Parts: sequence; C-alpha cells; structure tokens
Amino acid sequence: MSNAILGKNQYGKAEVHVVRVKRDTERHEIADLNVTSQLRGDFEEVHSTGNNAHCLPTDTQKNTVFAFAKSGIESPEQFLLGLADHFITGWSWVDGGRWEAEQSKWDRILVDGAEHDHSFVRNGTETRTAVVVGDGESRTVIGGLHSLTVLKSTGSEFVGYEKDKYTTLPEATDRILATDVAARWRFNTTDVDWNATYESVKALLLEGFAEKHSTALQQTLFQMGEKVIDAHPEIDELKFSMPNKHHFVVDLSPFGLDNPNEVFYAADRPYGLIEATVLRDGAPMVEKAWDGIAGFC
Amino acid sequence: MSNAILGKNQYGKAEVHVVRVKRDTERHEIADLNVTSQLRGDFEEVHSTGNNAHCLPTDTQKNTVFAFAKSGIESPEQFLLGLADHFITGWSWVDGGRWEAEQSKWDRILVDGAEHDHSFVRNGTETRTAVVVGDGESRTVIGGLHSLTVLKSTGSEFVGYEKDKYTTLPEATDRILATDVAARWRFNTTDVDWNATYESVKALLLEGFAEKHSTALQQTLFQMGEKVIDAHPEIDELKFSMPNKHHFVVDLSPFGLDNPNEVFYAADRPYGLIEATVLRDGAPMVEKAWDGIAGFC
Amino acid sequence: MSNAILGKNQYGKAEVHVVRVKRDTERHEIADLNVTSQLRGDFEEVHSTGNNAHCLPTDTQKNTVFAFAKSGIESPEQFLLGLADHFITGWSWVDGGRWEAEQSKWDRILVDGAEHDHSFVRNGTETRTAVVVGDGESRTVIGGLHSLTVLKSTGSEFVGYEKDKYTTLPEATDRILATDVAARWRFNTTDVDWNATYESVKALLLEGFAEKHSTALQQTLFQMGEKVIDAHPEIDELKFSMPNKHHFVVDLSPFGLDNPNEVFYAADRPYGLIEATVLRDGAPMVEKAWDGIAGFC
Amino acid sequence: MSNAILGKNQYGKAEVHVVRVKRDTERHEIADLNVTSQLRGDFEEVHSTGNNAHCLPTDTQKNTVFAFAKSGIESPEQFLLGLADHFITGWSWVDGGRWEAEQSKWDRILVDGAEHDHSFVRNGTETRTAVVVGDGESRTVIGGLHSLTVLKSTGSEFVGYEKDKYTTLPEATDRILATDVAARWRFNTTDVDWNATYESVKALLLEGFAEKHSTALQQTLFQMGEKVIDAHPEIDELKFSMPNKHHFVVDLSPFGLDNPNEVFYAADRPYGLIEATVLRDGAPMVEKAWDGIAGFC
Repeated sequence: MSNAILGKNQYGKAEVHVVRVKRDTERHEIADLNVTSQLRGDFEEVHSTGNNAHCLPTDTQKNTVFAFAKSGIESPEQFLLGLADHFITGWSWVDGGRWEAEQSKWDRILVDGAEHDHSFVRNGTETRTAVVVGDGESRTVIGGLHSLTVLKSTGSEFVGYEKDKYTTLPEATDRILATDVAARWRFNTTDVDWNATYESVKALLLEGFAEKHSTALQQTLFQMGEKVIDAHPEIDELKFSMPNKHHFVVDLSPFGLDNPNEVFYAADRPYGLIEATVLRDGAPMVEKAWDGIAGFC
Repeated sequence: MSNAILGKNQYGKAEVHVVRVKRDTERHEIADLNVTSQLRGDFEEVHSTGNNAHCLPTDTQKNTVFAFAKSGIESPEQFLLGLADHFITGWSWVDGGRWEAEQSKWDRILVDGAEHDHSFVRNGTETRTAVVVGDGESRTVIGGLHSLTVLKSTGSEFVGYEKDKYTTLPEATDRILATDVAARWRFNTTDVDWNATYESVKALLLEGFAEKHSTALQQTLFQMGEKVIDAHPEIDELKFSMPNKHHFVVDLSPFGLDNPNEVFYAADRPYGLIEATVLRDGAPMVEKAWDGIAGFC
Repeated sequence: MSNAILGKNQYGKAEVHVVRVKRDTERHEIADLNVTSQLRGDFEEVHSTGNNAHCLPTDTQKNTVFAFAKSGIESPEQFLLGLADHFITGWSWVDGGRWEAEQSKWDRILVDGAEHDHSFVRNGTETRTAVVVGDGESRTVIGGLHSLTVLKSTGSEFVGYEKDKYTTLPEATDRILATDVAARWRFNTTDVDWNATYESVKALLLEGFAEKHSTALQQTLFQMGEKVIDAHPEIDELKFSMPNKHHFVVDLSPFGLDNPNEVFYAADRPYGLIEATVLRDGAPMVEKAWDGIAGFC
Repeated sequence: MSNAILGKNQYGKAEVHVVRVKRDTERHEIADLNVTSQLRGDFEEVHSTGNNAHCLPTDTQKNTVFAFAKSGIESPEQFLLGLADHFITGWSWVDGGRWEAEQSKWDRILVDGAEHDHSFVRNGTETRTAVVVGDGESRTVIGGLHSLTVLKSTGSEFVGYEKDKYTTLPEATDRILATDVAARWRFNTTDVDWNATYESVKALLLEGFAEKHSTALQQTLFQMGEKVIDAHPEIDELKFSMPNKHHFVVDLSPFGLDNPNEVFYAADRPYGLIEATVLRDGAPMVEKAWDGIAGFC
C-alpha cells in the first residue's frame, strides 16, 4: 500500500507558436504569439490509474489555439481570456487553468523611407508577456515584459552599506547601473485597453529607470513600480526580477593609464539579483495568481 | 503622494560558480557548485529612500560563499544550510532567505582502465539542485535535479481520452515516450545522508520511468513520485515538471515504405507539459518553501 | 617516434566584453564590444615541447584590449585595426592574426519625449560584427551582422521546383517568407566611414528583402547582395547564411474553418538553410580572409 | 546593369532530427541523429532569375533523410555516405554536397541492476559529430565530437611566457586546467569500423588530456592529437578548438584564510581559445573538406 497522494497539478501544451496575419487590406498586420495552455481540475484518475477519460489532449489544446487565432488576435491578454472561457466552461472536470503568451514585436521595414505594407523586422530585445489565470468564474490578468536591457553610464552610486568581515567592496560614488528588466503587473479588471496600457507601462518603466539618481538598484526598481502604480489605477501590483549586471572599472594603472569611469569590463556571472513587489496601498492581494511564474519571489 | 508600498522582496548574489578541490591525498575530489544567495528581512528603506544601512552587499554574499567553501563542500544541502545559519543569525534585520545550488557531476577519466587521480570528465546531462529556505529558526531543504533526459521506445500508449470538436489526434497503442525530468523533493528533516539519498532518489525516478507500461505521462510521473515517497520516509513531497517530448511516426507511405514505429521525427515545439505534486498522505504542507522555484505549479 | 606534426593554428582570448563610455560632455556615448583576439605565427615549440617563450599570454591580449579602449572606440573595425597593428608589428614570431568583435546597439531612453543624456536601452535584435585579418603588412576587413530577423507576410512563392519520388511538398503561390539574416561583407580598402557604411548596408539588405516579389529565398538573398555590391564600390564580396524559417499554414478545415493564409504555425526545426556568396564581377578573391568564420560556405 | 555575380553556395535542410528504433528483438536499439543536408552544384538560375528548375526542395531532402532511415542507421558516417551517393548521382546539376550529423548518446536505464530492454537515459555531455563532403566521385569523411568537458585539478602549470608592458599575469606552477574539447578528425578512407573508431578516439583524447603534466594547453592539445594519429592510420588530420576555461584561485587572505589551490572561481568570459591542427607527416591535405566547419582555424 502506497502512502503517496496527488497534490497540485496542471497540464497542457507549451509554446504553441502562432503567427496571425491580418490581411483585410494591402497593409498587413501581424501578431506573433508563443502560447502555453495549462488546465486545472479533477485529474486524479489520470495520475493514479492512467484512465484518460478526464484528459483533453494537449494536442487538442494546441488545435484550439490555432482555431481561435482565426478570429483574430487583438492583444495577447484578450486572446488568452477567450481561451480561458472556452476551456473552463466546457468541461465539468476542468475548473481552472493558466494561459500564458510571449509576444515578439515587429516593426515595418522602411523602403525609401516609407513603411512597407507586408515586410517586417523584429525590433527591440524585449518580449511582452501575458498570463490569464482562471478559477471558476474569476479571471486574473497579469501583463509583463522581460529582456528589456537598460544601462545608465552615470547617475548611480552605492555607498553606506553594511560592512562585515567578508566585505571587500569599495564604495562607489559613480558607477554604471545595468539590468535586464523583467516585470509583471497584475490588473484589477479586465476592462482595459491592453495594447495602449502595455506601451504606457513600458515607457514609464524606462523613465523610472532613467530619470532619478540611483543609490541602490532596489531604490530604482521601486521608483519604476511606483510610477506605474500611480499612473495606472487598473494595476494593483508589480513584481520585478532584475539582475545587477556588474560593469567593473578596469584598473589601467599597471599600464600607466588613468581610468575615470571610461573603460569597463562587463561581467556575466555572478550577478546581483534584486526581486521585489510593488503594491497599491490597500488593494487586495491575489497570491494564487502568481503561482508558476518563474523567477519572482 | 504615492499609493505604492513595498511587498515581498529578496536580494542577493546569483550564480557564484565555486569549484572546491579536496587535495588531502593524491586522489583529489572536486565539488562544482553554482550558488545563489538571497536574503529576506527588513529592507524597506533600501527601496523607499535608498538608504543602504540594511544592505549587506551582494558582493559580500559572494565572498562569504567562497570563504565558507574553504571548510569543504560535502554536499550542496549541507553547504547551503551553513550559509543560511550564517546570514540569518548575523543581522537582526535579516530574518530569512533562500539559498540555492546547482551541482555538476564529474567522473574520473580512465587511463589504461584505471581511474585517474586528478583528471575528470563531466558526465550525465542532469544537474543536481538544492534549495534551503530559512525563516527564523526553521529550515526547509529541497533536493532535486533537472535535465535528466529519458526515453522509452515502446511500453507507452495514449487512448481513451476526451474528444471534442478540436480533437484530431488519433489514439496510439504504441508510442515513444520521452521527457526531461525536472523534479524537486522536500525533506521533512535535516538529518539526512544527502549524497546517498540523492543517488537513491535518482535511481528510483529512472526505475519508475522504465518499469511500468505507461497509459499517460501523468501516470508515469505519479509512479515515479510514489516510489520515492514509499522508499524515503524523510521526503514528504515531490514536484515534477515534465515536457512530453513528442516523437512523431513519420508517414513513409508516399515513398512506398511502411513504418511500424521505426522512424520518428523528434519535434521541439510545441510540447506537452505535465506538472504535478506527489505528497505523503497526512504530512504537513510547507507551501512557502516553494516560492521562487521556477516552472512548477 | 610520432608521425604527428603541427598544422594551422592560432590562439588568443575570446569574448573580452568591453564597454567604453565617452563622457567628455554631459551627453555620454557608449560603445559595447565583445572582442576576440587570435594570434598566428611561429608557435611550434609551445605545442611540441610546451616551451612558452613564443607565447604572449591570452591574459595579456585581454589587458591590451582594455588598454587600447582607453583611447576610444569609434567603430569596431577601426578598433580591431589598431589591435592588429600592435600585435603583428610587436613580435618577430607573430606574423598575423585575426581580431573579431560583436557590437550591441544601444538607443537613448526617452524621458518626456526627450533623449536622455546617459540612460540607454538595447535596441534591435541584430548584432553588428567585424573581423580584421592581418597577414604581415596586409589587412582585410570584413563587416557584418547577424540575427536580423525579417518576415514577409506575402509577396513570396515557391513553384516550378524539381520533383522526385521523395517530394511531397505542394507548390505555394503565396507564402510567408521569414529568415534571420547573417551576412558578412569584405571591404577592398580600409579607407571607409565604417559606421555610416554599416547603416547603409543594413538598410540596403532590409530593402532588398522587402521590395521584390520572391520566387525562392536564394533569389531574395542574391538581390540583397546585389544592392550592396552596386551601391558600395568599397565592398567586393558578401557571404550570407540564411535559414528558411518555415511558417506552415494550419489546416483548420477539420474545425469547419477556412484559412486563406491567416493562421500560421511557426516551426523551429528543421529549417531550410541557404548559403551563398555574392561577388563583384572581376574583383580579386581573398579566400583566406574567410577562414574561421563560422556557418558560411 | 549590376556588377554582382554568384560565388560559392550551397543549400539544403538543417537539423532534421530523426530517431530510428531497431526493434527486431525485445531489446531495442536507438539511433538519435540531427541531420543536415546541403547540396552543391549548378544553382545559378535559382539565384539570378528565381527559376527553380534546378532546385530539389529542402523539404524533399528532409523526406529523403527519413526514408533512408528506414533502412537502418548503423553509424552517422555510414548513413551520411548513403545520402551523399543518392544526391550526387541523382541529378546532373548536383555535383557535390555536404552532409552533417550530430548524434546524442543514450544508455540503458538500470532496473534492479539490469539493463532495461527499451528504456534509455541520455548520458555524457558530449555530442558525436560526422561530416561527409562529396565532390563528384570523391568522398571525405570527418568524424568528431564537441562538448566533452574535462578538468585537471593539478598537473598543469603556465610559466616562462613572453611578458610585455601589458602583462600582469603571475606565473603559475600549479593550476586547474579545464576545457570543452571540440575535435574533428579526417579519415583517409571509408573502409572504417566507424563506431569502434569513435570510441577509441574519444578514449585516446581523454587519456591524452589526463596522463601528462601540462605546461600549456597547446601542448596538451598536441599530445591528444598525437595519440590519435599514432594509433589510427586511417586518420590523417585532427582539428581542435579548445577554450581555456579559467579557474581563478580566490584570494581568501582578507578573511584570514589561506588558499593552497582549494577554492576556485570558475569564470565564464573571457576565456582563452586554442585552435590547432595535428597532421600525419607526409599525408596529403584536403583543405576543401573543412569548408563550413564552424569554429576551427
């Protein structure tokens, strides 16, 4: 007799890479999404006896993504909300799930200075992300981005920190601050202009990084979140995971050269790692919505 | 006036790659660990005002990893427990944290059939993982591994599943089953022979994958966990994240050839993704210990 | 007695990631280069007897990169030419070498619509590349880029190809054409405005991809090269390596839906791979300059 | 009128991931190959006019790989030789090509100490490689491997090297030597027991790395090649590309600790990079066979 029982679980199809071309006019639009669908529900028998009666194949979930794409993809958030409704309302033994997408951004190629109708080039290093978590009737939407790589060549210091017997780091009154921003923001509603909000949040994050003098990456992170919370009442919470990508001033003195913060060695590993949540004061928490989001505390 | 407040957060140094050589005798031993240290505590001011008084630099955390390695690395779990005690007891404003390691496995090179004293070759594709979560006096240890790639060329079927209008997948009574096992297991004690337990759990996972006919990857996953729960009373919970790496039978009929499960196309994306928890019946849950472990539901 | 002798060889330091900040004014400029230095010469003894008298350490080559960066980095090509002269003229037993750089592109962050003085964001997915090959007095410069990802949602067909007994591909009169452009171009002079030329070549490649109807990726590739050869007399040769990133029209008919080139599945592997050289008619070849450039025929 | 003409070119399908199961008995065997097929010949019109009459689709090349796998895959070399003959003899306008494979190694899973009949686990980090270059009647076979990661914890020094004004590296009489071996070896015949030879060469490379004291990675590389040349008369040439993966002794003196080569920091970038060719004295060269092999000088 075994002592093992089944705990939390989910299953689905990951990384369904769908490209939707909108070609109603000569001027095409493209939506490029990598979609993951994960169902939650009563899957006890699949695990314990291998009876698949309560198993809608992951292949079917993939087909559903493609079939739904036929109706158009206006935004990743809207598209995922449609999938959530379809799967949760369709089977009594599916009571929730999690749908995620990564969106790649394309710009139009310029030919003789004019935007081309149907030729595109990938632009920007960042990837837009979206998650919809469904639990019965409730839906939580989490927007986001990752791999937004930023750097300040000055306007950053690190002093006044705790020193113990293992501390050798000298204080720095002027340093490079560089990071790859990964951020997720939780909406308190689904009545949102998803694409406009994404562009606004991204711009605010960039401004928050750029505009103030930084005394710690934590402080900069908080300012970035604060700007979003204060400008977007439809967002209650942001989570950040930001590496401190160290740029070390190279010691050129052995070669008879000074180096007033001009020549840096950009190191890979190890790196600082700053993770924090910025909340709207008084807003309700939705802890469960964050389950399974990798790399955030 | 801002409405933003600080929520959950942690910070530290990620991916401190330390190699410890034990050279007391001619026959050297090596421990190869990639260590991440993350502190939790009262870091409100660092975020809100940029005052670093409550900030032990990530550089100091890195130095501490190296200094502690001088005392030897018997196992990743033991090593991380030492770091947890050091950081949590050292500062009133540090009340917890999370320490993680990935260990690469090295075998001795054979020269004329004999194991070499100090020459090694990386072996196996899997990486051993360990996490210690500390919260005041409490310590939770989570062992694990990832990238253990396995395949069954028969002994797997998928039939009797739910079919809806988007289902096109034909039933398969004989298929390849392949996955990369990622598993984490939570100990209910720290009184453990960490290395022997790791080897035992890994062997049980492989046996659990191999030995029974599979009617669904979920069922195989559960059997793998069940074997560990039943053989290791010091382990209360396992979490798995396992892709279903599809191997499609190639249709050779246009070329006048049959294909009785001999020639397969190994696809990359999309892939099924099965995530589940296997628990010891009646054992207490420790949900918080799993925070920040990427890719598990 | 061994029958083994030493053949072609080179050695050096790879991936020296240097960031040079130009801070003469409030408005900083940054150059972000990943530099590899490789020396060629009389290194027979290092290999055969382990005598290092003819071995300038790779660590020294790294230091030299940082020291030279102090004088400024106007372009990767100019910077590498300086390194080539330094190493080739400095030691009688160094008679040549190969210096390579990858440059990441940064844009200024906009704050309230204005370009920030010292805050930057990585932009574009493409990486600029440069190689300088030195052999005694001669220098060959090869500019380039990779990871420039482009897609046409129409204006591409593939018909009239050879069909044999293994051919099942249906002809397509309208398809998506997508690729990651990797291109290298060889200059016939060092008297070049390197940065302006890079921008011009990149724009021509994009236009060449966009503007004409494509009947094969090979044809499109050739047109891209042709535009550069005809516009830039200082360039004699381009080499391209371009995957055909398949976007398959999803068959939605089982779900009662048509799919007039609207919903595509973007596959990863396998992919077509087209490699070709476009030359200036009558210009001399410099085969040796291409040694060691990965992934080009 | 354009000045552009077509130079060297090839095209085909890359990364056809085929898994062949041999199931004649209960004890299955699997061959796991990632195959790339590239044709050379008269493809002028495809590039210049987009006429595809001389274009056997890359999709057809993929189908051919799968169809040929039906006959079994005894070794990657043998399999590629069959593809070369098929394509080169089949069309007057195909006069050569290049076929490449990467093979992943699988071991049997042990259940109660016994090898399982049809359950396998990936083993080793190294990938076996094979290339067949065909030019009319001639065939050249190049075996190889990459990602064979090795480390010596002692038995390595680096002294007596050239010092200039940029040299700061201290001499080391005892250091860690670590690398990822990438090697390719050219056969002078096709009458070879491919699998046995692969195992023998791999063992010799490991022994060559382990057995002698190293005064430079170049010397160790040469000894590795020398052992193969002297043991295998059917091999005339090896090319190596080996990073010097630096392991730096951590300075623990600020913490009152000594560090007699016990605690190391394993750095990622930059790294030394040693590339060299080891030849059989007097054997003919076949330079063209190496075209397109990435990362070797």
